[in-house]
Amino acid sequence: MFDLILRGGTVGTADGCYEADVAIRDGRIAAVGTGLGPACETLDADGRLILPGGVDPHCHIEQVSGMGLMNADTFETATASAAMGGTTTVISFAAQAKGQRLRDAVADYAARARRGAHIDHAFHILISDPTVPDLAADLAALAAAGHRSIKVFTTYNIGLDDRALMDVLAAAKSAGALTCIHAENDGLIGWTKSRLLEDGHHAPKHHALSHPRLAEIEAVERMCRFAEFLDTPVMLFHISTAEGVAAVRAARGRGVPVWAETCPHYLLMTGEVLDRPGLEGAKVMCSPPQRTGADQEALWQGLARRDLEVISSDHAPYRYDETGKLTAGPGARFDQIANGLPGLETRLPLLFNAMVSRGGLGIEAFVDLTATRPARLYGLPSKGRIAPGCDADLVIWDPARQHRYDENDLHDNVGYNPWAGIRVTGWPDTVIQRGAVIAAAGLLRAAPGQGRWLPRALATLPTGRPAAEVAYLESET
Amino acid sequence: MFDLILRGGTVGTADGCYEADVAIRDGRIAAVGTGLGPACETLDADGRLILPGGVDPHCHIEQVSGMGLMNADTFETATASAAMGGTTTVISFAAQAKGQRLRDAVADYAARARRGAHIDHAFHILISDPTVPDLAADLAALAAAGHRSIKVFTTYNIGLDDRALMDVLAAAKSAGALTCIHAENDGLIGWTKSRLLEDGHHAPKHHALSHPRLAEIEAVERMCRFAEFLDTPVMLFHISTAEGVAAVRAARGRGVPVWAETCPHYLLMTGEVLDRPGLEGAKVMCSPPQRTGADQEALWQGLARRDLEVISSDHAPYRYDETGKLTAGPGARFDQIANGLPGLETRLPLLFNAMVSRGGLGIEAFVDLTATRPARLYGLPSKGRIAPGCDADLVIWDPARQHRYDENDLHDNVGYNPWAGIRVTGWPDTVIQRGAVIAAAGLLRAAPGQGRWLPRALATLPTGRPAAEVAYLESET
Amino acid sequence: MFDLILRGGTVGTADGCYEADVAIRDGRIAAVGTGLGPACETLDADGRLILPGGVDPHCHIEQVSGMGLMNADTFETATASAAMGGTTTVISFAAQAKGQRLRDAVADYAARARRGAHIDHAFHILISDPTVPDLAADLAALAAAGHRSIKVFTTYNIGLDDRALMDVLAAAKSAGALTCIHAENDGLIGWTKSRLLEDGHHAPKHHALSHPRLAEIEAVERMCRFAEFLDTPVMLFHISTAEGVAAVRAARGRGVPVWAETCPHYLLMTGEVLDRPGLEGAKVMCSPPQRTGADQEALWQGLARRDLEVISSDHAPYRYDETGKLTAGPGARFDQIANGLPGLETRLPLLFNAMVSRGGLGIEAFVDLTATRPARLYGLPSKGRIAPGCDADLVIWDPARQHRYDENDLHDNVGYNPWAGIRVTGWPDTVIQRGAVIAAAGLLRAAPGQGRWLPRALATLPTGRPAAEVAYLESET
Amino acid sequence: MFDLILRGGTVGTADGCYEADVAIRDGRIAAVGTGLGPACETLDADGRLILPGGVDPHCHIEQVSGMGLMNADTFETATASAAMGGTTTVISFAAQAKGQRLRDAVADYAARARRGAHIDHAFHILISDPTVPDLAADLAALAAAGHRSIKVFTTYNIGLDDRALMDVLAAAKSAGALTCIHAENDGLIGWTKSRLLEDGHHAPKHHALSHPRLAEIEAVERMCRFAEFLDTPVMLFHISTAEGVAAVRAARGRGVPVWAETCPHYLLMTGEVLDRPGLEGAKVMCSPPQRTGADQEALWQGLARRDLEVISSDHAPYRYDETGKLTAGPGARFDQIANGLPGLETRLPLLFNAMVSRGGLGIEAFVDLTATRPARLYGLPSKGRIAPGCDADLVIWDPARQHRYDENDLHDNVGYNPWAGIRVTGWPDTVIQRGAVIAAAGLLRAAPGQGRWLPRALATLPTGRPAAEVAYLESET
Repeated sequence: MFDLILRGGTVGTADGCYEADVAIRDGRIAAVGTGLGPACETLDADGRLILPGGVDPHCHIEQVSGMGLMNADTFETATASAAMGGTTTVISFAAQAKGQRLRDAVADYAARARRGAHIDHAFHILISDPTVPDLAADLAALAAAGHRSIKVFTTYNIGLDDRALMDVLAAAKSAGALTCIHAENDGLIGWTKSRLLEDGHHAPKHHALSHPRLAEIEAVERMCRFAEFLDTPVMLFHISTAEGVAAVRAARGRGVPVWAETCPHYLLMTGEVLDRPGLEGAKVMCSPPQRTGADQEALWQGLARRDLEVISSDHAPYRYDETGKLTAGPGARFDQIANGLPGLETRLPLLFNAMVSRGGLGIEAFVDLTATRPARLYGLPSKGRIAPGCDADLVIWDPARQHRYDENDLHDNVGYNPWAGIRVTGWPDTVIQRGAVIAAAGLLRAAPGQGRWLPRALATLPTGRPAAEVAYLESET
Repeated sequence: MFDLILRGGTVGTADGCYEADVAIRDGRIAAVGTGLGPACETLDADGRLILPGGVDPHCHIEQVSGMGLMNADTFETATASAAMGGTTTVISFAAQAKGQRLRDAVADYAARARRGAHIDHAFHILISDPTVPDLAADLAALAAAGHRSIKVFTTYNIGLDDRALMDVLAAAKSAGALTCIHAENDGLIGWTKSRLLEDGHHAPKHHALSHPRLAEIEAVERMCRFAEFLDTPVMLFHISTAEGVAAVRAARGRGVPVWAETCPHYLLMTGEVLDRPGLEGAKVMCSPPQRTGADQEALWQGLARRDLEVISSDHAPYRYDETGKLTAGPGARFDQIANGLPGLETRLPLLFNAMVSRGGLGIEAFVDLTATRPARLYGLPSKGRIAPGCDADLVIWDPARQHRYDENDLHDNVGYNPWAGIRVTGWPDTVIQRGAVIAAAGLLRAAPGQGRWLPRALATLPTGRPAAEVAYLESET
Repeated sequence: MFDLILRGGTVGTADGCYEADVAIRDGRIAAVGTGLGPACETLDADGRLILPGGVDPHCHIEQVSGMGLMNADTFETATASAAMGGTTTVISFAAQAKGQRLRDAVADYAARARRGAHIDHAFHILISDPTVPDLAADLAALAAAGHRSIKVFTTYNIGLDDRALMDVLAAAKSAGALTCIHAENDGLIGWTKSRLLEDGHHAPKHHALSHPRLAEIEAVERMCRFAEFLDTPVMLFHISTAEGVAAVRAARGRGVPVWAETCPHYLLMTGEVLDRPGLEGAKVMCSPPQRTGADQEALWQGLARRDLEVISSDHAPYRYDETGKLTAGPGARFDQIANGLPGLETRLPLLFNAMVSRGGLGIEAFVDLTATRPARLYGLPSKGRIAPGCDADLVIWDPARQHRYDENDLHDNVGYNPWAGIRVTGWPDTVIQRGAVIAAAGLLRAAPGQGRWLPRALATLPTGRPAAEVAYLESET
Repeated sequence: MFDLILRGGTVGTADGCYEADVAIRDGRIAAVGTGLGPACETLDADGRLILPGGVDPHCHIEQVSGMGLMNADTFETATASAAMGGTTTVISFAAQAKGQRLRDAVADYAARARRGAHIDHAFHILISDPTVPDLAADLAALAAAGHRSIKVFTTYNIGLDDRALMDVLAAAKSAGALTCIHAENDGLIGWTKSRLLEDGHHAPKHHALSHPRLAEIEAVERMCRFAEFLDTPVMLFHISTAEGVAAVRAARGRGVPVWAETCPHYLLMTGEVLDRPGLEGAKVMCSPPQRTGADQEALWQGLARRDLEVISSDHAPYRYDETGKLTAGPGARFDQIANGLPGLETRLPLLFNAMVSRGGLGIEAFVDLTATRPARLYGLPSKGRIAPGCDADLVIWDPARQHRYDENDLHDNVGYNPWAGIRVTGWPDTVIQRGAVIAAAGLLRAAPGQGRWLPRALATLPTGRPAAEVAYLESET
């Protein structure tokens, strides 16, 4: 006797699709196939797709930004928004304040998430001050407890210099943690920004100029060299340029353990979105900025070849008012405007539309890049797949349903939708976490605190180093 | 009620492993999971792995070689050997004779396979004479009937020149067929071989010199350019060099639809194997030849990054006697010795040992590269995966069982084992095709003719061309 | 006592400019400097430049084309045209007919040049039939006699296949000759041309489509691999694409002895020139065809970095009438129109204008790429430089003089000027060969047969292979 | 009437060699050729070479090192040593102390050089503190006065961070000065050095480990990106790795205005030289350290292709006693030992031997890389060439003379010769500056203060940007 069976759907996985029922017991997938039953409850998935719940491994929730501004979203609002968009697992940040011990930072975020989160979650430990006592020991203890990734910046006021980056990467290697990096050259950005501001170029569109593409390219190359030197895995966040993809590809080709992601706003927007009247462009300001159509082509190509292995949202929520983007008022300069745009809820429908409904990458790539690979890379073996034993985190997608985004149709606390006016085909009808429906028919069915924190394993990231394989044969013949 | 359930094993897929039973009905996988049943019959997989049956997409069976010599193996012996080694699907060649119409060549091989094959099979149409009438029409009709791949050589006496290659690639594109290519520069090989023979360098080890690494590198680069020009998919067979991997990687990075494979004898042997007393080296002579340790590293790295997506056997069986390798007698020159070595039966144990037992690539990569990807690339959606609806082609692997290869322990008709003396850990205990055990406990349980011919779909090979995705957004905002 | 002194000019060399007189004795430069004298005769170069006479190492004179058509120019007309444009040395082709011995071909061209040439000259031995007897012996004898370069095609009806190319390259290496290659993929061109003609695309502009850029790219890559394999120098003629430059650059970076040139019509025309009314485009049809602005940028960049080391004219003269371009009449298809455009006379003024008058490469690069390097690469140490002992081949350039090209202002026998309408700044006022004025004030002063054949040394082409240098230190310490 | 004529020699230039006399008047080359005269004085160069005096653009003279230690050499001793080795022009450093205005630093060094220098000289302005007032204005004034190059470090205690580097590069661009960079990643070196010292690895050979090759590779890539962003020329000092050469080559291929040099100790020593008993290795300790034989091959290849355009000495003189290398005593750790080795006097004989006597690069490359290009790149048009109007800085080389270096045979104040035991063929017999013999027969003939400071022009460094050339044609047709 199963607890629940989803009947009549087409199961979509990273490896292919098949028609099967999915049976759930005790919150886990118990079986997939035909002839399953009986079950206490049945959900009809007829004519629709059953996909793994989305895994969004890069989002900012209830966090103070590098500019000192609190996110508009709490764990409660952010995870509600995620659930409504088909995402059942998020990894946000436990951000260390200057001088704060890492374990305290993690404890603080964990407590808040425990109370507020509607969906399952984990944390990247954001290290902004590597000079605190016991950093390496704390990191080792936290990793052992399941916090298996850290985040560092090469720029912003919380950016680390090269020596500190080396120290953190080495500590991460010892602890068995993956290091995620926001890689842009700080000096190049700072120099450019100063010039722009001095010359009176203050508009949101000048933000893009202040983060030159070479700032990303340089920092990506540098971080690949650091990973190469230490032979320790790094994840390069939000690649936005063709040359960034090429640098990642080149590093992987020489055996460097480097992974990379991009985001919907780099794949589907170009820098022109910033050039709107007044400060409207501020709604889509982010770092790195949106680039060109040629970059988009290179990013899609990188995803197709899996040189980029993840598409995350980089959800960074700030209201378009005096509490958020406009704290500096209606005459704000671009450097006074918080960076980021909301994306937790729109990530999957935008990508389903682009990759499946209108594009050629298909369901397999969609599932792989938004759920399966993120889960694997970040050490979440029970997430992101539809297989017996995995958590029953599932989404029933209606591939034909259309939706036109409006300015106010999201469930976060941001108050605007950067994709307003866009029409997508394909929609998450029903969202299930650990066997329980948490969203359906446009209504949230989960309660705050219902989400669980997920301890994580150290991801096994095969790099092809074949020493053992090559050597054995000679020793025996 | 299921027909058969495999109980107690760990299911291994390209995406991960999980503990589950596998239930079979009507020759197909009906369900995977726990709590399945009842079933007419049960097989115990306790403590062992349940993996997809191997898919070997490159092997020569009952075929006349380019040198005019018949393979030692018939469909009966070759597929018996494959089954004993855990492989349940093979793609061999329907080789066109000079002047022969393609449909006649295919009909001939199909008839022989239908009578002899123990396992499921398909054919690459080997085109040696593109001047026959109605080539394009025949190719279109054959592709429509499910023969979705062709094979051409750039060298040997059946090699095509560039113009003929263009014609065949264009016809393949029209027909919807994938073109597999043996890519080595014919002029460079011919020139070098002449020099060696003139200078009295006749030994098997000189065979390797006669196929310089630059012959492969050049032809790989050229075929990538042809695929780029026609924008039609090609599969480059048996890459053996580091530069070959790099050329494939570079082409894929610029969006060329090119795929590539390698073989166990390039991954686990170096060119030194040819340097044995007398003609013993002839037993492992093949084209391209085995290379160096540095090449092996590059090949493993290429597999880890999936720039190489397939490991096939390139089984090419000739006895080490006057009917095979030694037709020219004990004083044979290397150019008088048939190229190739048997590999259908040893491919999977050697790779399981190298990738799982002793290496770091793991079960997922083993399954992916030897079954899942070959099936997908060659248009066999019901093969290579463990998912409801797929053919119940399964192997129960004992990961702990050890075996030391002997000279005479294979089930083909070749009479020697090129891997004699090698000890492997991990062994295919029980092999199942479409729900029926075809090999178990070292005994073949299948009958000749039991294997079925597999019509194939045109593989969907995502290359990341994002035109639709990129464009749509601009048209709507 | 000197024979002649050029007074008051600025001497321009590949290494820099300086103000000095140039003194000549016995046809050679005797001294450069101030305070020279006395001399029998003085030429005033006040306010003007004294540059080496141009060396044009790639031009077709009195030769039957691959299409069987005789050039419009004889040695008499071609070299008159060259002299009027500031060029004092040409290397044209001694073209072997099918079945003809190389020595006979050379003797034939040498005899005609001896009678007709106004300026000094040498020959590339064009090998169209490597199957003739004694090819290697003839080549060795000819090289020893001073014919130190050969020319082969990879396409056209006189193109060689890969095996023949290997044979010729190996024979050239033995003989001590440099091999010049027209590198385009024959199969790719043939296939494309057939499609175009079948589909009724017959206009001159379709000629460009029939020589796809990938045909050049592929063949350049292949010829670099051949040079790498044999470790023998090759000169790649008329590179036209950015990827071609990149392939040359990559090969040189890995130590391959490869050199390359381009031509004014690739640097200063794009493919749009072919799209003129009627057959007018035929006047500028050549192979490879003109490409894009981005290719032009890459070519200039390649020249600046000296990955391309020569700018030749590839003068290929056919009249725009029924004896030349229009032998097939006014309805000619592009494949019936002889390829090539005149360039001997316009090469230097066009380049002086582009590189010196309007561009930033400067006099040094102009001299280096059009005289000094061609002379050095082709084994002509007495040409292309202004240094004591060198032949007194000098041009007095007026850097300020302007000229607007007209349709009928050239001194060849072609009857049209492909650059008509173009205005250049900088003009060769006086042209001197071996101390004698051969052109001045727009008048030819030389007589047919006055030019001499130049025996050539094997060029020393440093490639940086440092074996000796690196090794010696270890052996001594 | 000339002042002096060198008779009977073979003149060697970057473009070729020729037999000629060289006539001098008023300290400049007046004429080269035959039949020159009469002259007040004649020097016999029979059977020998007349080459330009060497230009050594990277040496440390009378300068306080980054570690606070004064060089062993004064201008007097260093330039005596240079002259004895055939070098007639040096560019050393005017090193800014922390807080010091640039003009004061330059005035200080200029005064000392004016008193002490035996040969002509110029300065790179070494910026260690870009926070001083009026930096940009001082730089502009100094550049206008002829100080046309600056030097910065990315590491050591005087290294600049990325933002400061951007500021300096931008100021240099405005001022019209070339920026020379010591490029190694400071964080990576610091991290590694700490580990080594903590682990008790204190020997000179551990110095090499503390400067990992990836530290150079990363910084070279980064500085190329900075030059690309600002489109301002940079000179990368002392490239030591194959990947460094490749990074320079790649940047130049995409049009970045970057130049690079290497030094004899990277070309002719490997890292093994550091592994000598006791502290003996300290004698050859430098940064970056010597590398491997494969790196040497890549460096020679880079020189042959002119991706590296200069070979300098990086003369950095410290005595092997308590005043120099051993200030920390006989138990010194590697980080307490001053970096550098003497090289002004040995640079040319070592390279003549390697490139001409025993190697294949030849006289032209020797002259080009050690005199002609350094002079051109650093804005010294009157140096480095043998042409009328140039300074009569000449060296009569005896190509056959042999010398075996001893421990005490140099004329600097260092007290040891790192090349002791090496035998070279080829020796500078007579050294002439501005027409006066300054060294001959092993004796110095110059007086301190005889050398002149050389104001420099902004070098014109052609990069191939062809905008003007490409555009003009379209606008006229």
